[in-house]
Amino acid sequence: MPLVVVGSVAFDSVQTPSEKRDNLIGGSATYFSYAASFFTTVRLAGVVGDDWPPEHTELLTARGIDTAALVVVQGAKTFRWSGKYFDNMNDRETLDVQLNVMGEHHPELPEQYRRCEYLFLANDTPEAQMKVLGQCPGAKLIVADTMDLYINNQRDALIDLLKKIDGLVLNDSEAKLLTGDENLVRAGHAVREMGPRFVVIKKGEHGAMFFSKHETYVMPAYPIPDVVDPTGAGDSFGGGMMGYLAEQGNVEPKTLKEAMAHGILIASFTVEDFSLDRLKKIDRDDIARRMEEYKRMLSF
Amino acid sequence: MPLVVVGSVAFDSVQTPSEKRDNLIGGSATYFSYAASFFTTVRLAGVVGDDWPPEHTELLTARGIDTAALVVVQGAKTFRWSGKYFDNMNDRETLDVQLNVMGEHHPELPEQYRRCEYLFLANDTPEAQMKVLGQCPGAKLIVADTMDLYINNQRDALIDLLKKIDGLVLNDSEAKLLTGDENLVRAGHAVREMGPRFVVIKKGEHGAMFFSKHETYVMPAYPIPDVVDPTGAGDSFGGGMMGYLAEQGNVEPKTLKEAMAHGILIASFTVEDFSLDRLKKIDRDDIARRMEEYKRMLSF
Repeated sequence: MPLVVVGSVAFDSVQTPSEKRDNLIGGSATYFSYAASFFTTVRLAGVVGDDWPPEHTELLTARGIDTAALVVVQGAKTFRWSGKYFDNMNDRETLDVQLNVMGEHHPELPEQYRRCEYLFLANDTPEAQMKVLGQCPGAKLIVADTMDLYINNQRDALIDLLKKIDGLVLNDSEAKLLTGDENLVRAGHAVREMGPRFVVIKKGEHGAMFFSKHETYVMPAYPIPDVVDPTGAGDSFGGGMMGYLAEQGNVEPKTLKEAMAHGILIASFTVEDFSLDRLKKIDRDDIARRMEEYKRMLSF
Repeated sequence: MPLVVVGSVAFDSVQTPSEKRDNLIGGSATYFSYAASFFTTVRLAGVVGDDWPPEHTELLTARGIDTAALVVVQGAKTFRWSGKYFDNMNDRETLDVQLNVMGEHHPELPEQYRRCEYLFLANDTPEAQMKVLGQCPGAKLIVADTMDLYINNQRDALIDLLKKIDGLVLNDSEAKLLTGDENLVRAGHAVREMGPRFVVIKKGEHGAMFFSKHETYVMPAYPIPDVVDPTGAGDSFGGGMMGYLAEQGNVEPKTLKEAMAHGILIASFTVEDFSLDRLKKIDRDDIARRMEEYKRMLSF
C-alpha cells in the first residue's frame, strides 16, 4: 500500500562532539520517506526553495519515492535547521532555525496522494496537519508527530487534532509536557485518552513505548556503539514503522509490534552516520539480519 | 546453592514528590537479601547498631535469610541514608549520610559463609570488598557493585578489585564516569576489559544492559505506572539476578540472561511501594506471572 508523508525537507547543519557538517540533506519528511522506502511506495509532500539541488530529489526518486508533491518555489530558500549534540549524543540544542519557504507553504495534495490509505503527518503546526488530514477522507491509518513548540503554543489546535488521528508519535519529554505527568506509562495512556487509538513514545537511546487500550509495552533501542549523528532517528523510526504497516496492509496488534521493531531498527542504522549516508548503504537484507539479532537479544 | 551478600543494612528516610517516610528498613544488603530470598538461601553479612530493632532482623530470618553475620554493635548507631526524589522519580539527591557503625566495621565471615560459591559484594569501599573476597577462595561467582564516590576517590583500589571479580554491576552514570565514555555500549565493554567476565549496567526506568566478550544486549524495565519509591531497585535487581543464578547453579549465557530478567522483575515490584513493603506481599507465583507478561511484551 502506498504511504503519504507530509513534512519538512531541509538543509541541516550538525555539530557533534567530534565533527561539524553543513548543508546536509535533512528534514522530517526526507528521513521518513527514505526509511519507509525499504518497505513500500512513499509519496512525499513538502516544499523547498530553488537552492535545493535536483540531485537531492533524485536521491529520493531513485528509491521509488514519489516527489510529485515536493514543490520547488522559485526565489525562495529551503528550510534550514542547525543543531549541536552534547557529549551523551542523546541531548541536543537547536542553534538556529530558518523556516524560509516552509513558513508560507500550505500543502495541496495531488489526486494520487489523496487516495492513499496510509498517511503520516510529520511535525508541523496542528492547523497545517489538520488541513492535510482533511484532504484524505479515505485514509485508513493517520498517524501524526508533534513537538514541544506546538504543545506549548498551539495546545487547543493540537487537542483538536488528537481527536481526528489514529496514532500519535512523540518523544518522552513531549509526552511529559503534554500531560504534566512524569511517569511515561501514565503519560502514554493519558495521551491516548485524548483521542488516538495508539500512542508511541520515543525514548531516543532507550527505545520506544507503545500504548493502546489493551496493550502497554516497551522495546529497547538496538545497541549501537558508534553513534555518529542522531539527527533524523525519530523520523526514521516513524518511516520504518509506517512503511512496514503500509507494506503489511493492516494495523493488527501483532503487525503494530513488528512495525515498532522495524522503526527501531531503521533508526539504529540512521544514527550510524550523518544524514542519509548510512541508509544509502543498506538494503532489506541488512535490516532482516539486524532484526534477527534484535529478536535474539530479546528472547530468553 | 546458598548465596552470600556483604553490604549495608540501614535506616532510610525517603522523600518523594508526594510523601515523606522516616526510619524505613533499608540498605543494599537488606534489599539484595530479600530479593534473592525468593530463589535461594541467602547468608547476609553486615553490621548495625543497638538501635536496630530485632523485628527487622526477624523479617529477614522469616524469609530463610541467614543473619549469623549480621553483627549488632552495642553502643553504636546503624547506618542512615536520607534522600529526596525529583518529579521524574528516576533522579535523586542524597540529603544526608551517617555512616555510623558502618564506618568502623570490617566483616569477618563465619565458616558457613566462607564455603559459599556465590558471593555478592554490595556497594562498599573497594578495599573492604577485597578483604571479603579474600575470605572466600572457593567462590565460583563473585559479583560486585560500586558507586561514583569510589570511582572518583579510590580508583586504583577499584581497578585492582575489577581484576579479581567475575561480574560488576553498576549504573549508567557510574559506567560513564569510570570509563570517560558517554556511549553505554562502548562503556560497558571498556569496563569488561578492565577485568570482569561480564558487566551489567543498570539504567533505572530504562532497564539494564549486559556485556560479555561475545554478547551485548539490553533488556527494558517492566513498565510500572505507579512508582512509589525507587529506593533499593538496583540492589533488588542484584538480588534477583544473583538469587536466580545461585538457584540454577550455573552461569551459562542462557542462565545469565534469565537472571537479568528476574533482576529486572524483582526491581519492578520493589518500586511499587516504600522499603520492602511490596516485596513482603508477593510470592514466587507473582514473579512467575509478571515474567510471563514480560516475555510476552518482548516477543513479536
